[in-house]
Amino acid sequence: MFDKQVYILRRSVLKSKLGSGILLFLGNEESPMNYKDNTYHFRQDSTFLYYFGVNEPSLAAIIDLDEGKEIIFGNEMSIDDIVWMGRQKTLKEKSEDAGLTDLLPSAQLEVYLKKYQQQNRNVQFLPPYRAENQIKLSTWFNLSVAQIKSSASVPFIKAVVAQRSVKSSEEIAELDKAASVSADIHLMVMQYAKPGMYEREIAAKIQEAALASGGNLAYPAILTVRGEILHNHYHGNQLQEGQMVLNDSGVETAMGYAGDLTRTFPVSKKFTAEQKDVYDVVLEAYTNAKNLLAPGVRYFDVHLTSCKTLTQGLKDMGLMKGNIDDAVEAGAHAMFFQCGTGHMMGLDVHDMEDLGEQYVGYTGELLKNTSQFGLKSLRLGKALKTGYVLTVEPGIYIIPELIDRWEAEGQFTEFINYDKLAQFRNFTGIRVEDDFLITENSHRMLGKHLALTTTEIEAIRNEAF
Amino acid sequence: MFDKQVYILRRSVLKSKLGSGILLFLGNEESPMNYKDNTYHFRQDSTFLYYFGVNEPSLAAIIDLDEGKEIIFGNEMSIDDIVWMGRQKTLKEKSEDAGLTDLLPSAQLEVYLKKYQQQNRNVQFLPPYRAENQIKLSTWFNLSVAQIKSSASVPFIKAVVAQRSVKSSEEIAELDKAASVSADIHLMVMQYAKPGMYEREIAAKIQEAALASGGNLAYPAILTVRGEILHNHYHGNQLQEGQMVLNDSGVETAMGYAGDLTRTFPVSKKFTAEQKDVYDVVLEAYTNAKNLLAPGVRYFDVHLTSCKTLTQGLKDMGLMKGNIDDAVEAGAHAMFFQCGTGHMMGLDVHDMEDLGEQYVGYTGELLKNTSQFGLKSLRLGKALKTGYVLTVEPGIYIIPELIDRWEAEGQFTEFINYDKLAQFRNFTGIRVEDDFLITENSHRMLGKHLALTTTEIEAIRNEAF
Repeated sequence: MFDKQVYILRRSVLKSKLGSGILLFLGNEESPMNYKDNTYHFRQDSTFLYYFGVNEPSLAAIIDLDEGKEIIFGNEMSIDDIVWMGRQKTLKEKSEDAGLTDLLPSAQLEVYLKKYQQQNRNVQFLPPYRAENQIKLSTWFNLSVAQIKSSASVPFIKAVVAQRSVKSSEEIAELDKAASVSADIHLMVMQYAKPGMYEREIAAKIQEAALASGGNLAYPAILTVRGEILHNHYHGNQLQEGQMVLNDSGVETAMGYAGDLTRTFPVSKKFTAEQKDVYDVVLEAYTNAKNLLAPGVRYFDVHLTSCKTLTQGLKDMGLMKGNIDDAVEAGAHAMFFQCGTGHMMGLDVHDMEDLGEQYVGYTGELLKNTSQFGLKSLRLGKALKTGYVLTVEPGIYIIPELIDRWEAEGQFTEFINYDKLAQFRNFTGIRVEDDFLITENSHRMLGKHLALTTTEIEAIRNEAF
Repeated sequence: MFDKQVYILRRSVLKSKLGSGILLFLGNEESPMNYKDNTYHFRQDSTFLYYFGVNEPSLAAIIDLDEGKEIIFGNEMSIDDIVWMGRQKTLKEKSEDAGLTDLLPSAQLEVYLKKYQQQNRNVQFLPPYRAENQIKLSTWFNLSVAQIKSSASVPFIKAVVAQRSVKSSEEIAELDKAASVSADIHLMVMQYAKPGMYEREIAAKIQEAALASGGNLAYPAILTVRGEILHNHYHGNQLQEGQMVLNDSGVETAMGYAGDLTRTFPVSKKFTAEQKDVYDVVLEAYTNAKNLLAPGVRYFDVHLTSCKTLTQGLKDMGLMKGNIDDAVEAGAHAMFFQCGTGHMMGLDVHDMEDLGEQYVGYTGELLKNTSQFGLKSLRLGKALKTGYVLTVEPGIYIIPELIDRWEAEGQFTEFINYDKLAQFRNFTGIRVEDDFLITENSHRMLGKHLALTTTEIEAIRNEAF
């Protein structure tokens, strides 16, 4: 945990932003795999962690804005719990570490909520993403599960998003650490991977390194020779000479902060000429995009720059044609780049995605485009502010099913050279990704440098064999 | 997946056991970590896997006992899904691999359930352990979440438990494999662990090996120098000379079958004399217990034998006193052995625990003792049958909090020598565990041999340095 003053300050800032009523925070429960007591590793809700710091299941908290009260609800361990789970710090001690003096048994929460309802007081909650918390809210507020999301408090969401978006110095230190540990793991992977290995052996090594670092993976590792599949979690392929490995993985620190890096490297010692050409296009998009990062710049424009650079490169290679601005405006580049250039990052790898992308990545004036293929996957569009942390991750992905679909539909024949594209059908995909902090006037990459150019990567691969 | 005939046969056996009505099976959903799309690794529901074989999220199935129909409900991938997740076999193909010809879109399930309700037909379901499925059942059957468990069908539960309890030859092959891969990992750990390492480095290595094997961990690994904490998932201690490492870990195969092994070994090359004395008591309890395993023998009696052997050994060491049968009858041994000697194992490491321990481990005549400390944690009591697979895992655990509590309460002063016990206060714990199949006349250990005696273990530790 951070120093207790950090949590006291965070709560005090939040209170100052929200006028009156009761704020209700739900921590996460244990999550069962195949029966109740066989659980996945525990992951606390990030907003709960942010304001209350206690990393234990089955907690809740309220902030009474009118009376200035802060109460955490949870049960101390019984002797049976101690026999099975061991004695750690008591919940009372942990709460005090977060500057909380009022701890009540879990069952008291319902009593409090009933009292508030009788008093007609405004109890505000955030949209729940776990079914256990949906059931609780449904029961307490007499709502159907379908009604809960729309009953969440928009002012509460907006205040949390505004606060969590701007990272404090303690948070930046954690995010630097997450990025550096992730970079170490990426370097290890570039040294470790050999032709003939199965993807799962390398994915397993990534998981090991994340756990051994004292944290965990921030998200399931994408470790694949089929880099064109954006969220590929299949690890059954065997690495073959001539292929590329796409490694999109990052750790979360013990404090819960995420790293999110991607590198693509050849299974052989060198990229093929064709792979190098495409890689350099992606790298140019990465460079042009990240060079724009500064307070006041709309990330939507960073994304457009990334798309246009990719389109220019693809045109130079003969895969696209026509006017570049028109091609990107129409969305033709999404044949090759089906997703967004980046997203906010923090306690969540897609920071605060549970609170709603419209609030996290857009504004009342800049709404998310939810229809255009490609743009609808851009999680961040709004103007950047000092203290934001985000990813830049352009890529080129050749997806056979998408080629077949669009070619059959006659899509974008003025921008896509389908004949030439047929030669690239089995190219797979390349992505390059780093994490950036928006500074006062510009930006700074988080964590240590990780081999980025084909020359740097090939040097590591040469030593690996 | 097994051959489709396996699934066809399993469903046909189940149908023959249950007269009329509709059987509803719910597969598992993806399980979110910190927001909806950042999920834990997918684990299918074991009963769904057993009867329908398809290892994908968001499926359901019905068996209409009256009309002999079997329908699986799920949605094929959209082009967006393919872009993000890649094309695998279609759901249709996977269903056919399990001998199922009727596949309908997910939304059709509600239509079918409404129709059945209008027809006043008896739709039976199993008790759900995941909140997502609790919400579905609550909505479909207009029950409060609290009512669902008691609305589950007891005949359905009993038929599934009876069938899944007796393992077929394909299942035994998988369970042998799970035990052997787990044994390989245990051997690797005994060779890998060194003084000065952190527990998390070794736990990470176990996770790596499980993933690299093509499966996963069957349950969170217990890897600790505080072996007296029964389900200790804390991995922050540093290994010190003179301590012991307790490793309770096992893989589940890609097919979902579990292994569950425990070994305790010295951080140094050798056990201390005291550690060896206690180890030999535990090993004798293990040997006496497993030698009893045969069809017709009540596991309750296997457990009593294990408890009495432990008590005799503890008495010989001066930690217990008085009449052994009386001490065990009274539950005094539970100062040292707070849990059960073993449990059923199969697709779940605690097999079918979601269906209820009373049905899985006990009978109408032999009810579970839910009050006596120790016995209330015995998950299996009933008479064994050919084809059962189970663990034998006695242990001795010295829990300071329990000593203080019982001594202050004056508990079992006629059986426990508290003065002598004070000298063992920081001893920690020892457990030894293997997996066994009940054969036609006796039993057989699953998987390959893993170092068991202190001599065997010390030989490995000697080579490790």
